[in-house]
Amino acid sequence: MIKAGIIGATGYAGEELCRILLGHPQAELAAVSSVSFAGKAISEVYPSLRGIFDGVLTGEEEVIARSDVIFASLPHGLSEPLAEKALAAGKKFIDLGADFRLDDPADYTQWYGLEYKNPGLHAGQVYGLPELYREKIAKASLVGNPGCYPTSIALGMAPAMKAGILDAGSIIIDSKSGVTGAGRGLSQTTHYPDCNEAFSPYKVAAHRHTPEIEQTLSDLGGEKVTVTFVPHLLPVNRGIVSTIYASLKKELAVEEIHALYKAAWGGEKFVRVLDLGQTANLKNVKYSNYCDISIHVDGRTGRLIVVSVIDNMVKGAAGQAVQNMNLLFGLPEAAGLEMVPPAF
Amino acid sequence: MIKAGIIGATGYAGEELCRILLGHPQAELAAVSSVSFAGKAISEVYPSLRGIFDGVLTGEEEVIARSDVIFASLPHGLSEPLAEKALAAGKKFIDLGADFRLDDPADYTQWYGLEYKNPGLHAGQVYGLPELYREKIAKASLVGNPGCYPTSIALGMAPAMKAGILDAGSIIIDSKSGVTGAGRGLSQTTHYPDCNEAFSPYKVAAHRHTPEIEQTLSDLGGEKVTVTFVPHLLPVNRGIVSTIYASLKKELAVEEIHALYKAAWGGEKFVRVLDLGQTANLKNVKYSNYCDISIHVDGRTGRLIVVSVIDNMVKGAAGQAVQNMNLLFGLPEAAGLEMVPPAF
Amino acid sequence: MIKAGIIGATGYAGEELCRILLGHPQAELAAVSSVSFAGKAISEVYPSLRGIFDGVLTGEEEVIARSDVIFASLPHGLSEPLAEKALAAGKKFIDLGADFRLDDPADYTQWYGLEYKNPGLHAGQVYGLPELYREKIAKASLVGNPGCYPTSIALGMAPAMKAGILDAGSIIIDSKSGVTGAGRGLSQTTHYPDCNEAFSPYKVAAHRHTPEIEQTLSDLGGEKVTVTFVPHLLPVNRGIVSTIYASLKKELAVEEIHALYKAAWGGEKFVRVLDLGQTANLKNVKYSNYCDISIHVDGRTGRLIVVSVIDNMVKGAAGQAVQNMNLLFGLPEAAGLEMVPPAF
Amino acid sequence: MIKAGIIGATGYAGEELCRILLGHPQAELAAVSSVSFAGKAISEVYPSLRGIFDGVLTGEEEVIARSDVIFASLPHGLSEPLAEKALAAGKKFIDLGADFRLDDPADYTQWYGLEYKNPGLHAGQVYGLPELYREKIAKASLVGNPGCYPTSIALGMAPAMKAGILDAGSIIIDSKSGVTGAGRGLSQTTHYPDCNEAFSPYKVAAHRHTPEIEQTLSDLGGEKVTVTFVPHLLPVNRGIVSTIYASLKKELAVEEIHALYKAAWGGEKFVRVLDLGQTANLKNVKYSNYCDISIHVDGRTGRLIVVSVIDNMVKGAAGQAVQNMNLLFGLPEAAGLEMVPPAF
Repeated sequence: MIKAGIIGATGYAGEELCRILLGHPQAELAAVSSVSFAGKAISEVYPSLRGIFDGVLTGEEEVIARSDVIFASLPHGLSEPLAEKALAAGKKFIDLGADFRLDDPADYTQWYGLEYKNPGLHAGQVYGLPELYREKIAKASLVGNPGCYPTSIALGMAPAMKAGILDAGSIIIDSKSGVTGAGRGLSQTTHYPDCNEAFSPYKVAAHRHTPEIEQTLSDLGGEKVTVTFVPHLLPVNRGIVSTIYASLKKELAVEEIHALYKAAWGGEKFVRVLDLGQTANLKNVKYSNYCDISIHVDGRTGRLIVVSVIDNMVKGAAGQAVQNMNLLFGLPEAAGLEMVPPAF
Repeated sequence: MIKAGIIGATGYAGEELCRILLGHPQAELAAVSSVSFAGKAISEVYPSLRGIFDGVLTGEEEVIARSDVIFASLPHGLSEPLAEKALAAGKKFIDLGADFRLDDPADYTQWYGLEYKNPGLHAGQVYGLPELYREKIAKASLVGNPGCYPTSIALGMAPAMKAGILDAGSIIIDSKSGVTGAGRGLSQTTHYPDCNEAFSPYKVAAHRHTPEIEQTLSDLGGEKVTVTFVPHLLPVNRGIVSTIYASLKKELAVEEIHALYKAAWGGEKFVRVLDLGQTANLKNVKYSNYCDISIHVDGRTGRLIVVSVIDNMVKGAAGQAVQNMNLLFGLPEAAGLEMVPPAF
Repeated sequence: MIKAGIIGATGYAGEELCRILLGHPQAELAAVSSVSFAGKAISEVYPSLRGIFDGVLTGEEEVIARSDVIFASLPHGLSEPLAEKALAAGKKFIDLGADFRLDDPADYTQWYGLEYKNPGLHAGQVYGLPELYREKIAKASLVGNPGCYPTSIALGMAPAMKAGILDAGSIIIDSKSGVTGAGRGLSQTTHYPDCNEAFSPYKVAAHRHTPEIEQTLSDLGGEKVTVTFVPHLLPVNRGIVSTIYASLKKELAVEEIHALYKAAWGGEKFVRVLDLGQTANLKNVKYSNYCDISIHVDGRTGRLIVVSVIDNMVKGAAGQAVQNMNLLFGLPEAAGLEMVPPAF
Repeated sequence: MIKAGIIGATGYAGEELCRILLGHPQAELAAVSSVSFAGKAISEVYPSLRGIFDGVLTGEEEVIARSDVIFASLPHGLSEPLAEKALAAGKKFIDLGADFRLDDPADYTQWYGLEYKNPGLHAGQVYGLPELYREKIAKASLVGNPGCYPTSIALGMAPAMKAGILDAGSIIIDSKSGVTGAGRGLSQTTHYPDCNEAFSPYKVAAHRHTPEIEQTLSDLGGEKVTVTFVPHLLPVNRGIVSTIYASLKKELAVEEIHALYKAAWGGEKFVRVLDLGQTANLKNVKYSNYCDISIHVDGRTGRLIVVSVIDNMVKGAAGQAVQNMNLLFGLPEAAGLEMVPPAF
């Protein structure tokens, strides 16, 4: 059994990691930490866990000491020193924050306002999107787990980017995320009466996931890609829907593009390319590690429209992190992730 | 007191018309009709009206006979003959359906599959968007009340279109509508457990409001405009958010564009251009006739992003229809529409 | 025009008072205060008011000075000294908090942990439930506006209590309130992902509205009444549903009890007794000052079941406060409160 | 591997059975039937299952032929003949409908309007509430799976009923159910805009689960129990909260009653008695087989208040049915039911 530890276990992604790891056939939850709730049982914070996992929240050092693999779910800037310690102790480290996602230190500085303090550490980081970088992940010890929006977008765009069928300058991404994406911390925006029966974009063309999205699309397309990215806060608990627009370089039948996607993703357990005529809906992937993708062409304007949906807490965070853990330890990639999405 | 009648009063737009007209200081509800519920009091169908308006649902002929102005809220194709009768009887007619919105009969045939049977009638129709076509409406007897999506989009785009600052071929509109937009009729999609905690686009690049959107934008821009339009079903009762993307012909500071919008809409009671840095949210216009607009520029890609929000049932349907009625009869344009939007 | 001022205008009840008073034909909003947001326009806090009411938030003294009537919406204990000042200045005072609801100082001390500091002041207080105490209110200067739960319960129980048909010791009240009832302040309980798709009671048999409920029921019944009262947090923005159970002293046909209710409430504009066979639903009173009541009898157990629904922010707070203002100033009781409840 | 078949697989309980059985380590989904969708893959009806289970919907006979155990989820009256066939073929039968829950044929006739056609069949039926009737179930071939409301109520009341501490005539049950409880069929009540931001009771003191509730409580208490039961429709997808009120025969400290509950349920995996001071919330059991129970005493009125929450589709339907299957076949009782409830 792999011993897994979670630093920042009382955030939403941390709790979701608990839930998934508790059902993992080849891993056990060895330790959990929290700054705010140290000394309490995690089931006091999340009564859903009562009687199932009543582990006491400890400190970060103890998590590193007791675990083979450490998941960190922390505000940016806090994971870097912990990763260093964990790797020094021969452990593997999967960061669910933003500290190890960006290859270019300048991007990190521009969008997060901090600098990489240990460049050597970042040289070894791998971007943990298994469907795209599986081989690299399997050999790594330090994984930057992708952001929720970038996951939905990279999976939605990869086949088209690789095929080079799109005008790279034309990509517009209109994403909508459930409220768990904003985390457990309180804010007026996520106060129920302010958030329920409400809807609006936020951080319009200024969200920190933008450079991460562009990094992957550029890598896939083999050219520098700049996108317009606008996220919206959706009054549901879970799920991301990314509606992605891009101009086709030349006219292509939707059937051809669909075939391209089926070819690219046909062998992937967790990516489901819907039949033509169907439209992806977040309700079909909730509480699961699946990404559903539907393909549409606006023949009147020559644009491809891709709809890509995931559960932001599973494929967009904790589930993908466990998928990465499986790769790091040579386990079956889907171990612990076979949850069938409930229909309602 | 203007005598107002409603044909199709038990649909959602019909009921909302009742609600608004019951509070109108210079109009009275003279008659209401329904095919499904004829003979019943409308308050049996909508108990919210109980004791306030218990009028009995009659037939269409009676509504026409008893009213100075007839509102029709019917599936497309059914309003044309009624409008003919009403005009022949010297009444005014405001259609909340699609029968009198499109100038080009070919558009109607292509998107709705029907033909205009009485071309002379359509020669006299006016598109009822008061902020754009106020003078024409005031002189008309037959008004095609705009669709909900087109209203949010026309108000959001008019200043930029008129100023000619956009690449006309670059417009992409990602809209999200509350579930009342789908009407009172039952469907699996709008069954609560299928619709709650769910989200997806529908009729991707194929929605019937597309030609109506293009007609207005073309008129405003003075050139043929073709757009990509994708609507989504949003799990809230009311409201539309349109997030609109378009490339700027040349670099413009967001302040300049904002000034353009303030100049264009500054005198309009029902259009509120938010300060720079604010973002429009449907919660601030619910249950009111306001349209809130926020202006954003993505400097990295040279795109204008406009967020335009309305209540789909008020400014997007019944409220705008009453605004048109006020124009038709020379009443103060805001009469009966002074509802302050509740904050929650 | 009556000059109305609001102390604590940025709380939910305060904002709702603004909304209602802005539509009042015989009152104007003279001043608003807030401790947290003093110096800002209230429309910065509530953008729904933008362009409609951009009044700047001042201090309490200024509100008292500029108003004929002062509404206070504050935590308990803070209204008492303000009422004293207002009355001394010859103004009228309507408190939406708990400081002037309870006749027995011991109740206030037991449930709120404070003491009445100025007993003389309390001697003049009137409990502002117009349908029950209209005459007294009309003569008063100081009104304790009822709590939201007690309003729904008093209106639901008054006819039966007065008729003496119930076993006074048998009353059990199971109430459910929308989340605005918890106010604008942030808490984990009202954080969207914790509150959405969730439901539970709170303060089981220990809610501070209990003595207020008992005070009114005892007064109506002419004997000391003790009830079991359990509130629940309902994942909707607005509305209270009180399901009330009580044993009938002797067998009575539901028709007899219904007739009793029709007789008692038939002349009241804002209380609607539904027909037998119908069931009250909060959706029919949202955004309005109505209270809908349905009457049921469980013949198998000899119990009366009353369902009483209101909008907690209107009839349960701001609307009733305006109704009291109308009484205090001899205006038509329904002035400014004619809002037709929207059906959706 | 046990071969499990589902008749009525496209109803909500049927689909939930699929989801649970697909994750069961010792059972496989052998056949599924549907009258409405025969010939289609079930994943066409529920796209959440796409790629996971694309089994084609067949007829009832085929399900019986191919399965060791048949789950039926059908309107009342339809299961009786199918059970007969299944038992005749040597199969086991678990009915999620109402045909095998009531011991007294008169109850079935009174509340469901039908008669038991094969009394011999009913002689062998067992009421499938494992925590109460585990031994009987293990020996049976025909199980009447309990209703959702009765499950929450029986588990919430069993320790108190067995201890004889309650006045049997005083029990009042106020239950609230998520909308999946109303099933997949369309109705105006469950149309999103009619159901969202709405709340009301239904079938007040007239719900068909009443005799089932009374049957179990009478059995546990050793005396005839008649209750008042009022269900409410709660605008969430899943979950039941039953708030149960009963008078204590004599004064008892809440600690004593809590100890009674801990003693009764301490050994049960799926029943969690919360610590004193905590309150059960449906969000903590969603998507799981747990029942959370909190105990409260209203000392002022001498009443016990029990709050019992379950997921109506899991412990209230499909999960409990699988628990029964496990008992019928001698599998570990929790097999396939170890889902950790998500916290959000």
